Formats: sequence, C-alpha cells, structure tokens
Amino acid sequence: MQIPSIQPVADAALAATLAAAIDSKTKPPGSLGMLESLALQCGLVQRAVHPVLRDPAIVVFAGDHGVTEENISPYPQSVTWQMVENFLAGGAAINVFARQNECALHVVDAGVNHDFGARPGLIDRKQGHGTRNFARAPAMDADTCARAMEEGAALVASFSGNVIGFGEMGIGNTTSAAALMHKLTGLPLADCVGAGAGMAPEGVAHKQQVIAQAVRRHAQAVTPLEVLATFGGFEIAMMAGAMLGAARARKLVLVDGFIVTSALLVAARLQPAVLDYCVFSHCSDERGHRRMLEHLGARPLLQLGLRLGEGSGCALALPLLRAATGFLSDMATFASAQVSGRG
Amino acid sequence: MQIPSIQPVADAALAATLAAAIDSKTKPPGSLGMLESLALQCGLVQRAVHPVLRDPAIVVFAGDHGVTEENISPYPQSVTWQMVENFLAGGAAINVFARQNECALHVVDAGVNHDFGARPGLIDRKQGHGTRNFARAPAMDADTCARAMEEGAALVASFSGNVIGFGEMGIGNTTSAAALMHKLTGLPLADCVGAGAGMAPEGVAHKQQVIAQAVRRHAQAVTPLEVLATFGGFEIAMMAGAMLGAARARKLVLVDGFIVTSALLVAARLQPAVLDYCVFSHCSDERGHRRMLEHLGARPLLQLGLRLGEGSGCALALPLLRAATGFLSDMATFASAQVSGRG
Repeated sequence: MQIPSIQPVADAALAATLAAAIDSKTKPPGSLGMLESLALQCGLVQRAVHPVLRDPAIVVFAGDHGVTEENISPYPQSVTWQMVENFLAGGAAINVFARQNECALHVVDAGVNHDFGARPGLIDRKQGHGTRNFARAPAMDADTCARAMEEGAALVASFSGNVIGFGEMGIGNTTSAAALMHKLTGLPLADCVGAGAGMAPEGVAHKQQVIAQAVRRHAQAVTPLEVLATFGGFEIAMMAGAMLGAARARKLVLVDGFIVTSALLVAARLQPAVLDYCVFSHCSDERGHRRMLEHLGARPLLQLGLRLGEGSGCALALPLLRAATGFLSDMATFASAQVSGRG
Repeated sequence: MQIPSIQPVADAALAATLAAAIDSKTKPPGSLGMLESLALQCGLVQRAVHPVLRDPAIVVFAGDHGVTEENISPYPQSVTWQMVENFLAGGAAINVFARQNECALHVVDAGVNHDFGARPGLIDRKQGHGTRNFARAPAMDADTCARAMEEGAALVASFSGNVIGFGEMGIGNTTSAAALMHKLTGLPLADCVGAGAGMAPEGVAHKQQVIAQAVRRHAQAVTPLEVLATFGGFEIAMMAGAMLGAARARKLVLVDGFIVTSALLVAARLQPAVLDYCVFSHCSDERGHRRMLEHLGARPLLQLGLRLGEGSGCALALPLLRAATGFLSDMATFASAQVSGRG
C-alpha cells in the first residue's frame, strides 16, 4: 500500500472562531465539558464553523486467526462466521445499537474461514481463509498485508458519510491485538494480555505464554508494517488501512475497543496525524485498553465496562457526537436569546 | 406532604429470569458492562422481563434563590427567568439534546422571581418569587416546602411516561445544594462547595463562608425536611417530592448533576428505596458531585466533565437507557441465531 500522507487538522484561526462560537452559547463557558472539545475537533476535521455529521456508518471487519489453534479463546473459531451471519440477520448487539442510533452498518469479510457465497449485505474483501498461526509462522506475508490495507482504504473512501465507526469480529483477535500492542508500545506483555471474550486466569497466562514465544520467534519483525503482517489479522490490517483512508478523506474516525485501537497503533506509527481525526468512543474493560489509550494520549467518551467489540462502543457514542455538533449549530447565543452574561 | 412509602424493587425470581435472558444473548457474558446491570434494573422497576421505555420526559424545575444577595454566583438572578424563556423558545442546550434524543421536555416554574404571565409550555407551580436568603432566614417555611414536594409528586404522576429525567435552573442553586449536601451527608463543607457556574477561587471561598455562617445560624435544622426547608430551593423541594412520586408510580428516575442529586439526598433520607428507581446519568465536574454519588453508592453512566444542569446529562444518557432495554428485547440468543457457545 502507498501510505497516504495525513495532514494535521490544526488551524489557529478556525480554532479561535470555533472557540468563540462555543463560548457564545447560552451556558457557562466550558460547562459542556468533553462535548466542547469534540465540537472543536469536528469543526477542525471538517474545516467548518458548523460541522455536520453526514451519513454516519459503522463498518464491522471480520477475520479469522490461525492462532486459535493454540487454544487462546473460550469460543471455537466457527463463532466468527456464525456471528457474521448474526450481523446479516440483524440480531447482534451492534445491529440493535446501530438501528437505535440511526447509523448505517456495513459488514466486511476481510478473511473469515468460511465460504459465505454471494450474500447481499456482505462486503467481500476476503484475503484468505483466516491467517496463519503466528505461533508458528507470520500471520500473513507483506503483500497480503499491504493489499488488505489498500482495500480497506478504498472501501471507506467509497462511503458517502463523513464519520466512519470501526468495529471487528474475529475469534482470537485479542491475542493478535495484544501482540501488536506489546511490539508497538514497548509495554510489558503482562499489561497487554487480557481475558478477551472471557478466559479464566490460567487461560490468560497460557495466552501470554503463546504470545511471548511468538514474539521471540519473530524477533526480526520491527517496523510497524512488519509487526502488523507478522502478528495481525486480516481485519486488523484492513482497519489500519481504512483509518488512513478515512483520515485522508477528512472523515472522522470513530474508534471502538481494544482490537480497533490496536489497528490505530499501526496507523498512527505510519502517520501520526491520523490521531487528529480520531474520536475515542470508549474505554473497554479488556485489560490493556486503558494503557493503549494512554499511550495514544486519547480521552475516551464512555467508560461503561464494555468488552464486546463489533463497533458497539462507536454506536453508543454516536449520540454524543451528534450532541457536540448539535449544540454548536442549534443553541441560542447570549445575544440572540437576550440572556445576561456574567456580572 | 404525606411521604409515600416506596417499595424496594428486589425480586429474586425475576432477577434470575432477567439474568438468564441477558446471558442468553449472542455476546460473551458480562460483555455489555453497565448496560447489563441497567437492563436488569429496568426490568425490576417495571416488573417485566422485557422492560420498555414509554414516553420518556425531562422536567426542568426552575426557581430563584434569595441567597444570591450574598454574591455567590457570577451571574445575576435575572438569568433564571431569561433561561426559562430560552427553554420555552427552544434555544438552550437541554432543548437541543432532548430533541436529538426524542425526549419530551417540560419546564416548570417552581418559584422564579419573575412574572411570566400565562405562557403556553410553561407549567406554573410557583411557590413564591424566589426563596428567602438563607444567610438571614430559613429559605421557606415548612408548609411551603411540603406543598412544593406534594405538587412535584402530583405533577410527575400525571405524566404518561415511565421514565422521568430531572433537570433544574436557578441562579445560586449550587449554594443551596452544597448546604444540603453538608448537612445531610456530614461531609466537610470544603468537599461540598464548588465553582458552580464558574466562580473564581476567591468566590468559592466566599460562598463557603456564607454557607458556614448559615449552617451555624440554623443549627436547629436537623431532620431532612427541616434541612430542605431551611437551605433548599423551591425547585429542589419540588424535585425531592417528584422523585418520591415517580418511584411510587414505579417510574425510572433519571438523575442529572449536583443540584438534582442534592434533591435525591433528601428523598433518599425519607425513603431509602427511592434509590432502586434511580439511574445516575453522569458525574458532573462540580466539586462535590462525585462524593455525593459515592455517598449514595451510585455509579454514573457518563463522565464527560459536564457542569451545566438543565437535565442535560439525562438527555445525553437516554440513548444508553434505550440501548439497555433494546439489547434485552431485540438481540438474538445463542439458540435463535445458532451461534456456538463456549468450547
């Protein structure tokens, strides 16, 4: 993939105009807290005094992971394709939350180990029938990784909306994400590995051991792209590319939980300015996510103890994004409402 | 006011049925975090396996405070009525957030120091033209306080909805709320007094001194109702009654920030089971709110650094309440979606 160059959003004049607009509204200055910084960010990303959320969409990238052979998840690999069917049938949590919050939902087969056939509603970007088991060999080769990223970038560029929420499904993918986190942040592995979909403590210890061995085996993987190809999943690689593509098109990137943020770790190492476009929907209960967010200097909107993935945090945070742009465009000012200012 | 007896919602059999329903959904057990406990609570309050949010409404209670004479707010008292006009015209933050989240909004004149005349959209429950200055005399007499509570209870009982969000407007009411908090929790005054709508540190120190003197002057106020009448506002008394009325009618009580929670402190001292009906929408940035919530054993849904009031936190938390009841009613189960369980 030709890595696109991402421009920082900083614009001192526009930021001052936005700040003045925010402070003119009928409320004590700063009293809308994080919604005020979010409104400012939306304005800067869209280069607009009145940013507007157009056709927000959540994209769920699904992929399988060879490392499930190492017994690192309480669920069988087949749950990945079964959950994709559940998404297509409208029965998963993300379907409920996307419907409630009037958000389009797209489901992408990035590399599930299952033949779905031609299925209306399923976007086919299959890179393979699951990755290789990274405990034994690199998850994918560099070309496949680059292609996955490129197809992700092209896909989100084709969407009409200016807000893309990122979600994922893939049994075993917290194992990939923990390995990426360890390699890209340098944090101790113990801080990166968690219970995923619900491993007991012995299982988490085993998962950590599997990753530690793989990290030793693949010591030659050093650059972000090498690390991504070696330990990543197809869905993670595709998300990393798609985040860069979205930022390049000046769309807001709505970040979900641990696995989505691991894709962002890669994207941000390649193009740090991608972070200017990111809204962090929540801090997950998966061990490691909080430290991952701290590493990125990110302030998540929600802290609800979620650990589901699927983009569920993005759907739940969307009303807050609407509130941020909404107060900026629709609230009266002290002048327009003839409300007295500070004495 | 005849204080209604509030029944606890505990029901072991229904709780077990709800927990089983929650765990049957296609997600790892517990992975929806606080939304799962919220779904359980909604079911218990409504005595239903499939709780439903019917006609949610936010009620903003407005009142003026004689204690503004003591120079405890950066805004003049007239901002209370001006903001009521702003609510009626649809230009305040709560208007924007209620519209976005499809929530009815009611505005109540509980005792604003202004004659609005007959105004469509304004619910007249005026108890007076602002309270007395509690630095000199009790804010209201016991009869007025009881009547305000009673009218609040009757008002929310008349609403069709089963979710009532509580909001308020009243220049000076963080001063009342801080006094109530100190008297009802026993926490040091310094932990209860904050910047309100934006006092500078010297102003906060002065505010604390005003309250400390008033607390000494009114040492005879001891019971929750005496404390409420002495230091409260008309809007706070009306909210305390309305919360009891809502819980009595088995409606969910959606709690906003510092002032609304101070009304709940009173209600919970009178009828502790009212807490079973409360959903805490957010933790405000007003100093004291976090400790107030801790005192009540409350876990707020949002932590966005808001400090606006008006019920704004309630409107922003409503989508999370919808998500909680929505996943319970609309998600597929492992059985219905034919998704494999844990290996």
